[in-house]
Amino acid sequence: MAAPPNSTTFSGDVWAELRLADARDVPHIHRLTHQMAEFELLTDLFAATEELLTTTLFPSPTPPPFTSFTALILDLSPSPIVPDASSTIASRRLDLSASPLADPEAAAFASPRGGGRVTAGFVICFPNYSTFLSKPGLYVEDIFVRAPWRRRGLGRMMLSAVAGRAAELGMGRVEWCVLDWNKNAIDFYEGMGADVLPQWRICRLAGAALDKYKGSQEEAAGGKAAE
Amino acid sequence: MAAPPNSTTFSGDVWAELRLADARDVPHIHRLTHQMAEFELLTDLFAATEELLTTTLFPSPTPPPFTSFTALILDLSPSPIVPDASSTIASRRLDLSASPLADPEAAAFASPRGGGRVTAGFVICFPNYSTFLSKPGLYVEDIFVRAPWRRRGLGRMMLSAVAGRAAELGMGRVEWCVLDWNKNAIDFYEGMGADVLPQWRICRLAGAALDKYKGSQEEAAGGKAAE
Repeated sequence: MAAPPNSTTFSGDVWAELRLADARDVPHIHRLTHQMAEFELLTDLFAATEELLTTTLFPSPTPPPFTSFTALILDLSPSPIVPDASSTIASRRLDLSASPLADPEAAAFASPRGGGRVTAGFVICFPNYSTFLSKPGLYVEDIFVRAPWRRRGLGRMMLSAVAGRAAELGMGRVEWCVLDWNKNAIDFYEGMGADVLPQWRICRLAGAALDKYKGSQEEAAGGKAAE
Repeated sequence: MAAPPNSTTFSGDVWAELRLADARDVPHIHRLTHQMAEFELLTDLFAATEELLTTTLFPSPTPPPFTSFTALILDLSPSPIVPDASSTIASRRLDLSASPLADPEAAAFASPRGGGRVTAGFVICFPNYSTFLSKPGLYVEDIFVRAPWRRRGLGRMMLSAVAGRAAELGMGRVEWCVLDWNKNAIDFYEGMGADVLPQWRICRLAGAALDKYKGSQEEAAGGKAAE
């Protein structure tokens, strides 16, 4: 199959780096999030903006990684990556000599780090807490790889790196959610050692249903107690 | 039915306060968590200790409430509560004149705040993040009321207060989990305006399955990239 026009073809050795994101990555995070919403058939819930992503993910000062909301970027580079202790989470070589890869969006996803790098995915995670364990864990809110880069072991690299970091930080568990119809993802996660919990359901209070609770505790606090 | 021996009977007006917890509440949080594990048939997962609860929930300095792991305590008082702006989240009067309440564990759960107060429940919550909304939310890890105090509107008061706080902080949503067999809880949550999401399943990597990822990103970072 010929590569689509304007696509960039990667072949031979390519280097992948999972690194901490910074505010320069926001435009790509925004577009990757929209692609993820399309994949999950959830575009009706998509309300992300670059401005909100910037202020919520990269406040000033930004807390240390994995102590609050943490964004990681997956970059692919045509040349070897020199790990940067302050931002590299994981890196590896990808051998594409047997199957070159055409990325039609390579130009649009040029990494702000330059050097011909292309941004191909992202992770958003943050600490959660288990009272039963009395320990923090990591919750992976998003893990996403753009379509042409899938099935190359990059999702596994990303999740392994996050799990490795959680284990080294002494955290008790890593959790995330999967749609019950996404059998590929479920098989992949189970293959990585995860349990898919059958009994728990997520409850969500949002939008107008949430807003109606504004002021509810003040009424309660100010009213009845003083009677 | 006669009250069990050693139980304390509450009647007439009683005042409920949901307040920020501090380290003095840890022994009660520990025992409430164990009661919760019994209720959820999950005592095999219970590994909480008072020491771990103290260091993880009340580090020094403790971050502002709702910016990190946050513990709230439900106290019941035989006398009116004067709200304390620095710790009261919500309070209300309970009229028990029609149905006095016997609490067999009242002495064991005497509140560290004194004044004849009894600790009857707790909440653990922490910020989560929605990339689709690009906003933080609150995740309620635990919400628990001891058996004799249930069906008095206290669970509603606690969840309403947390939802109210989240809404006032500009958060996008409040989420928590429920066991799919707990129909009472599901009905209650739906009655409060929550959606129970049918499609999402929680994936969990913990224990030995998590530990095996220790060092995985160092190998990846140090190895292949330099070849």
